[in-house]
Amino acid sequence: MAVALAACLCLLVLGATTSQAGHPAHQHPKLINPIRMMPEASSGESVPVYNCLSWRLTVETNNKRNWSNVPARCGFYVADYMTGRQYRYDCEAVVDIAIKYVKSLSIPTDGRSIWIFDIDDTALSNLPFFSRPDVFFGVKTLNAELEAEFYEFVLTAEVPVLAATLRLYQAIVEAGIKAVFLTGSSERSADARAKNLKAVGYDTWEELILKPDSVNTTVQVFKSQVRNRLVVQGYRIEGNIGDQWADIVGSNVGRRTFKLPNPMYYGYY
Amino acid sequence: MAVALAACLCLLVLGATTSQAGHPAHQHPKLINPIRMMPEASSGESVPVYNCLSWRLTVETNNKRNWSNVPARCGFYVADYMTGRQYRYDCEAVVDIAIKYVKSLSIPTDGRSIWIFDIDDTALSNLPFFSRPDVFFGVKTLNAELEAEFYEFVLTAEVPVLAATLRLYQAIVEAGIKAVFLTGSSERSADARAKNLKAVGYDTWEELILKPDSVNTTVQVFKSQVRNRLVVQGYRIEGNIGDQWADIVGSNVGRRTFKLPNPMYYGYY
Repeated sequence: MAVALAACLCLLVLGATTSQAGHPAHQHPKLINPIRMMPEASSGESVPVYNCLSWRLTVETNNKRNWSNVPARCGFYVADYMTGRQYRYDCEAVVDIAIKYVKSLSIPTDGRSIWIFDIDDTALSNLPFFSRPDVFFGVKTLNAELEAEFYEFVLTAEVPVLAATLRLYQAIVEAGIKAVFLTGSSERSADARAKNLKAVGYDTWEELILKPDSVNTTVQVFKSQVRNRLVVQGYRIEGNIGDQWADIVGSNVGRRTFKLPNPMYYGYY
Repeated sequence: MAVALAACLCLLVLGATTSQAGHPAHQHPKLINPIRMMPEASSGESVPVYNCLSWRLTVETNNKRNWSNVPARCGFYVADYMTGRQYRYDCEAVVDIAIKYVKSLSIPTDGRSIWIFDIDDTALSNLPFFSRPDVFFGVKTLNAELEAEFYEFVLTAEVPVLAATLRLYQAIVEAGIKAVFLTGSSERSADARAKNLKAVGYDTWEELILKPDSVNTTVQVFKSQVRNRLVVQGYRIEGNIGDQWADIVGSNVGRRTFKLPNPMYYGYY
């Protein structure tokens, strides 16, 4: 704690010194010193904290790809983020922007406007599972046993709502847009997923599309193919929201895409 | 300061309580309470700080688009971020990933492999200008007078290097990839930009492409058209790095794209 406070103070002092200098800064081309990353071993305890902030930013901005686990040194950082207020504020901030966008649209009355929602950590929150000590917010690898237990968790149909996304759902329905839920979850969980979605407040939808076990492509390719089919059928994808970049890149991504935060896992599978 | 510390402590306690509970969390489906965003007026002084974190994340993830200024309430937050260590760590983290990617490539010896670098706040850092009190890290609108002064700043050819990007430049050159600098800066600044790039260590390049004053498209469209021309000429765009989403979306974006942080302005112009 003392180290973190010292780092805080240091940053504040740095910021204050520079921003209150009062000179036109272009007279000081050397004002901004490049501070180079130091090897962790030599740089004291505060650096891993910064590295975890940087790590999360590289993940959320799609700079870091195909990663398999949260680095062990960032476990408590991610735990604090996901269980604290900031994750919720970050979700609400994305949804605020999405709702403002929805309200700016003129939706035709032909019933062909849709909004695509991912399910896991978008419509519903898997935090009860990922906060298990043996999963530890993505630090631990999901081996076959944990994968099976995650599937059981899905089948309970008691996965809690991600509150911000429900707020967006209500806004799109009110605007005359229909919801399409599109998930990489197995088709075998269709009944549980439908029951779960209804139980938390997603009352109705145009389609609930799960991944057939026969499909061997990545989720990204699967979702692109489904969206292509929807467009061919005459639907207009007004928006598309997911917690994974795989949800919102590829073909026919939609008129506007929204990325919810998720520093716990990477959805390339 | 006291408020910020109290907020820190609060988050730590929240995090510790939840993550150390020791129960398999799926036995507590109500464990994770949705915390809703409160109106600022009723929520105490710590909330604007969280909102600025959320605001920055929505900007960096391309959720927030077409914004014109840093919100006034986030001015000191952005000032602290940009002048402190975190911005530098965040840049270095992106470049670490990019260099790892470069080292994974097998580059043919035909000299057709290129890497596209944006200039402003990518190859060079405009912080000396944006830290001016009358610009205040993007809080103030760049009116015609300030735009003119920014242009003078560019013409000094003394814009400092963004150290992380120079490190990436050295890695791509070493790997046999040629640099192409592609900027929305006016062609009239070509001499100053070239002199500036060389002065800080970008010794050589395949092309330095500036926007002709006759081009009336957005930077995003201009850069896409240039990349299309490069691909038609037989170049392979192995990578592409910029601080703006407009640098790395569109057509022929490159085999892999990298987004440096920049919470000071939005490059849609």
